[in-house]
Amino acid sequence: MPDPSVWSCPAPLRDGPVVVLGHGGGGALSAELVSEVFAPAYGNEILSGLGDSAILPLGGTRLAFSTDAYVVRPLFFPGGCIGDLAVNGTVNDLAMSGARAAFLSCAFILEEGTELAVVERVARAMGSAAAAAGVVVATGDTKVVDAGHGDGIYVTTSGVGLVPEGVDIRPQRARPGDVVVVSGPVGLHGVAVLSVREGLEFGVEIASDTAPLGGLVAAMLGVTRDLHVLRDPTRGGVAASLNEIAAASGTGVVLTEEAVPVPEPVANACGFLGLDPLYVANEGRLIAFVPREHADAVLAAMRAHPQGAGAAVIGECVAEHPGMVVARTRLGGTRVVDLPVGEQLPRIC
Amino acid sequence: MPDPSVWSCPAPLRDGPVVVLGHGGGGALSAELVSEVFAPAYGNEILSGLGDSAILPLGGTRLAFSTDAYVVRPLFFPGGCIGDLAVNGTVNDLAMSGARAAFLSCAFILEEGTELAVVERVARAMGSAAAAAGVVVATGDTKVVDAGHGDGIYVTTSGVGLVPEGVDIRPQRARPGDVVVVSGPVGLHGVAVLSVREGLEFGVEIASDTAPLGGLVAAMLGVTRDLHVLRDPTRGGVAASLNEIAAASGTGVVLTEEAVPVPEPVANACGFLGLDPLYVANEGRLIAFVPREHADAVLAAMRAHPQGAGAAVIGECVAEHPGMVVARTRLGGTRVVDLPVGEQLPRIC
Repeated sequence: MPDPSVWSCPAPLRDGPVVVLGHGGGGALSAELVSEVFAPAYGNEILSGLGDSAILPLGGTRLAFSTDAYVVRPLFFPGGCIGDLAVNGTVNDLAMSGARAAFLSCAFILEEGTELAVVERVARAMGSAAAAAGVVVATGDTKVVDAGHGDGIYVTTSGVGLVPEGVDIRPQRARPGDVVVVSGPVGLHGVAVLSVREGLEFGVEIASDTAPLGGLVAAMLGVTRDLHVLRDPTRGGVAASLNEIAAASGTGVVLTEEAVPVPEPVANACGFLGLDPLYVANEGRLIAFVPREHADAVLAAMRAHPQGAGAAVIGECVAEHPGMVVARTRLGGTRVVDLPVGEQLPRIC
Repeated sequence: MPDPSVWSCPAPLRDGPVVVLGHGGGGALSAELVSEVFAPAYGNEILSGLGDSAILPLGGTRLAFSTDAYVVRPLFFPGGCIGDLAVNGTVNDLAMSGARAAFLSCAFILEEGTELAVVERVARAMGSAAAAAGVVVATGDTKVVDAGHGDGIYVTTSGVGLVPEGVDIRPQRARPGDVVVVSGPVGLHGVAVLSVREGLEFGVEIASDTAPLGGLVAAMLGVTRDLHVLRDPTRGGVAASLNEIAAASGTGVVLTEEAVPVPEPVANACGFLGLDPLYVANEGRLIAFVPREHADAVLAAMRAHPQGAGAAVIGECVAEHPGMVVARTRLGGTRVVDLPVGEQLPRIC
């Protein structure tokens, strides 16, 4: 363990002055890494916008720009693989600002000795996912690291798209009165990855929900351009996303616990493993904060779309307890839903 | 070794059906991976454009979009570190299409146990390099992999910028009669990294040339918008870049070997190590194919810029031996300068 006296980063949640798995978990440790290390180093305000993608003025357009690294283990899991996950993840980050992904880049870090047939299978999955999402993989790069470093394949995708006229979707726009909607059942991706990693079986196969959400968002924008917030609850799950929105907007969120659609196999697996489904990652779901007057119509449009067939109202945005997420439990009580510190399930994306 | 009978990729240069270090070297193996695996998988024509960045029609603009993964070892070397290298590399890829980098994304893959002070030092180097290049780091992501995987820090940068009106710079535009110019001495980056990795000393410290080239390109475009080709000779060095341009344009290139500026310490180190400086990576140099009528003025503008002070004419583009690069040697003979198969120096960027 390094000497704490040489420590220079003011990171209050640290165990020690080193990177821990939780720094990649999308929770409080990740947020701290951004706020204490990266944002000061890069010296700009855009990073602190906290959206899934940055909205940038460029050539008279509003460009949405996003990047994500993927280190999921194993590379292949029920419902998908690192390739389609990497395409859908970046497509979805762009969609969460209302942008339709236009072009993707794709950078591979391959481990020496990885079978080329595996690389090809992942690349083909990326191609199929890109075609399904209507996005073009336009540029890429490949580096190779020595055997024993890396894990076969890491891939980083970045994406660009245009934000439509009149659309302004970001976490800061949540308002008391907004209806909180989720587009479908939660917890599938994290449990699917964990089940193959640990060799667990839960009676029925649980498949990842990985899917592109650009079409669903377009359908929702067809009802109203005045969607306030969209967020795909990936690392840290629904709980992390709602906490980030509450913090960014200075509003409170009340979650009706029994309204959250948790498939029975996910609930069983989470019970067995001691996980809370609210904190488990999803890769094909979104949370929307919708002005109350549009909520019914938006919900109907979502349910008419294949990616939103299981859409449900799960809560509302309130003026009370600003920055805090509170769940109404099945038993009629309430509990605070915290931002997770790290990640219950490391390396699920 | 996997069974060759399960092999499905038609990669004629393979040693076996697995990834080798040369697949990340920027030479023939890299090109084969793109043409045989990635391009068919992604199913589009843009990837085959072979430029350092893709030029994409978006919202009435021409967007330049590029990505690069960085896996250099060690993380810090004379003249720079993985952080400024990653910023400059992507800034330069955009500059090679004439675009000025506007925004960057930055995705880290950190190894559990890496000192946060090291992460901070790399992030600060990125911030300084971005400020120097006039580009904004607008979005990012961080993942953490288990100790023993990864190598401390891998980083992938992507960048966007606009191609100015009237500019059309790409490898296909090389024409017989073009003058081939290099912006300064070659071989510094590769030798600098190798020297610290292997603990070698060559009498004088050799520092990487890592630098942003957007300003130099803007100065060149100030002379004429009709630059034909720009290329930064990174992996595979000057030899790989000239071969790619010759192949893409169907022209021949004649290189005057003694005109290539090779600093004496680089020449000595290469002699000692059995390397050819033409194949060693540079990270702050460009090669330009300039119409003969503009060559003197472009060369003067380059020499007036800090990044082009050592600019020199190193050859010309010819109609003979299409697709081939031929060097006139110091002894008056000629030799073919081939595309390298892999990389003499793995993991230098």
